[in-house]
Amino acid sequence: MTRLPLTTLDTVNALSFPAFDETAAEGARARQAQLTKPPGSLGRLEELAAFMAGWRGTDRPRIVRAQALVFAGNHGICARGVNPFPQEVTAQMVANFAAGGAAINQLCAAAGADLKVIALDLDQPTRDFTAAAAMDEAECIEALQRGAEAVDAGADVLLLGEMGIGNSTVAAALAFAAFGGTAQDWVGPGTGSDAAGVDLKARVVAEGVDRHGALSPMMRLAALGGREQAALCGAVLAARMARIPVLLDGFICTAAVTPLYAADPDLLAHCLIAHESREPGHRRLAEAMGKPPLLDMGMALGEGSGAALALPILRGALACHNGMATFAEAGISGA
Amino acid sequence: MTRLPLTTLDTVNALSFPAFDETAAEGARARQAQLTKPPGSLGRLEELAAFMAGWRGTDRPRIVRAQALVFAGNHGICARGVNPFPQEVTAQMVANFAAGGAAINQLCAAAGADLKVIALDLDQPTRDFTAAAAMDEAECIEALQRGAEAVDAGADVLLLGEMGIGNSTVAAALAFAAFGGTAQDWVGPGTGSDAAGVDLKARVVAEGVDRHGALSPMMRLAALGGREQAALCGAVLAARMARIPVLLDGFICTAAVTPLYAADPDLLAHCLIAHESREPGHRRLAEAMGKPPLLDMGMALGEGSGAALALPILRGALACHNGMATFAEAGISGA
Repeated sequence: MTRLPLTTLDTVNALSFPAFDETAAEGARARQAQLTKPPGSLGRLEELAAFMAGWRGTDRPRIVRAQALVFAGNHGICARGVNPFPQEVTAQMVANFAAGGAAINQLCAAAGADLKVIALDLDQPTRDFTAAAAMDEAECIEALQRGAEAVDAGADVLLLGEMGIGNSTVAAALAFAAFGGTAQDWVGPGTGSDAAGVDLKARVVAEGVDRHGALSPMMRLAALGGREQAALCGAVLAARMARIPVLLDGFICTAAVTPLYAADPDLLAHCLIAHESREPGHRRLAEAMGKPPLLDMGMALGEGSGAALALPILRGALACHNGMATFAEAGISGA
Repeated sequence: MTRLPLTTLDTVNALSFPAFDETAAEGARARQAQLTKPPGSLGRLEELAAFMAGWRGTDRPRIVRAQALVFAGNHGICARGVNPFPQEVTAQMVANFAAGGAAINQLCAAAGADLKVIALDLDQPTRDFTAAAAMDEAECIEALQRGAEAVDAGADVLLLGEMGIGNSTVAAALAFAAFGGTAQDWVGPGTGSDAAGVDLKARVVAEGVDRHGALSPMMRLAALGGREQAALCGAVLAARMARIPVLLDGFICTAAVTPLYAADPDLLAHCLIAHESREPGHRRLAEAMGKPPLLDMGMALGEGSGAALALPILRGALACHNGMATFAEAGISGA
């Protein structure tokens, strides 16, 4: 993938993208109406077929290549004790991904997605956002470009995920900055914080948003986010340029792209939320963004696990769309 | 599959079955606690692994063979005008299944399930249940045995579905008879009834349950059900004998097995509801039976479509269970 033509973070609003192909989507809807089933009876699968049609620019979209990208980063905010796991677990989990031992490895293999894991300077955590901006603008743009460059322009769908000890606190800060409410609305147990841990996370998040909340949406990404959050934003933008629909994973992945939503909701028009996380802020986030998740399995793992689990749903939708007979072909009587 | 040792319908309560293997399930839970993820973070996938372990009798259950069975039948109740489609559509859809043109063909192919469709005397509809018993006991047992005989004893999981013009009315009658409330609680648009059609369905259902509701649970299956409902019950019992977990499809498939639930809820202990139908009675039914559906895609098609769509979720759960590294294997630090 080529680099994004960004000079400053705020120039994200000046990027131009191919539009959703309404003609292709309408062609897909017309086909759905002729398939051998009561009208609308495939429910959300019919919407998914039209969504894929519009973004891929064909009324008969197919998934030949599915790419899964998992970005990993480390966070200065861990100095505040927001996560019960030590920070070296991020690198240990990256090694586990490389060895094929994590949940995302199994789920990608089962669903037929090519997994690529990108560790972003794990030995250089971002700065503690309660004391300074986590990244400066150049660092943030660099991470964003690394996300963009990882996208396979030949993929038909992109699954996104993340790994980073402490990043449920980062996610809560980004979501709070984007949608307001209170810090408590957006924090949760993450990988296993107890009630006191969750209270600490809320205080830390409130401090960070007090300090950086008045910045522009994309400058908040630099000030509150981490490298994997910036990389996720870059991958979403690169996918949009290549007309590749995106399955966002759970709470942390969705929160990572809220700076794009705050800059312009249309920047996420090609993205679906794959799975409703058990992390309590995720439902609120999905509702605020108008993106009902496809699945709810009570998971709270990250790594792109929910996105990979949802891929077969998308495959099923397109299998029906492309493979079913029409009423005319099957010689079936109408109502 | 051998025939079920049933002499009368009510002898279903005298059948004996292998028990859930709590040792195997506990072994699966112990393994889940060691896998490289925060405890419980795979949510329902962890429960599914233990469920499969207990029924398959091994702490490392796998899905090598998945069987999908779709039973089709015709219903005398159509004489009351409860369905906007003509009754010949049942046979036309069976031909569409045979030709590979229906949704269930595509979803089974995508999910890796072997599909078998069994048409049950489509030229001999059951009797109108508002005027007589739909089936006599011998007819019902025969249909039940045909369902049992269709089960592949070598399968690791069984997906169940149905097709039958008019059978959302049959489903509503069985659910109303099993769980009470009002007839209106259990009727819905089915394949496309308008408000007047739904009102008619409610009147017909009320008449049927007035006439037959005092019978024993299994005799209500004969009096109100159809051949495909009886076959679904037979398949569920045969699967239980072979320790094969079952994915029930949507409203009609779930309602079909309510006579077994009413006879003894334990007869359905090896069954999950795969998908919450858009048909309004299904949520009520799932709650009454204590079986939260795995998926909610707003579908209302039947054919086993929701069961086939959920199979990849079960495969994903077992892929994680069997393929993930433990913390010790991966050398990852604890919390």
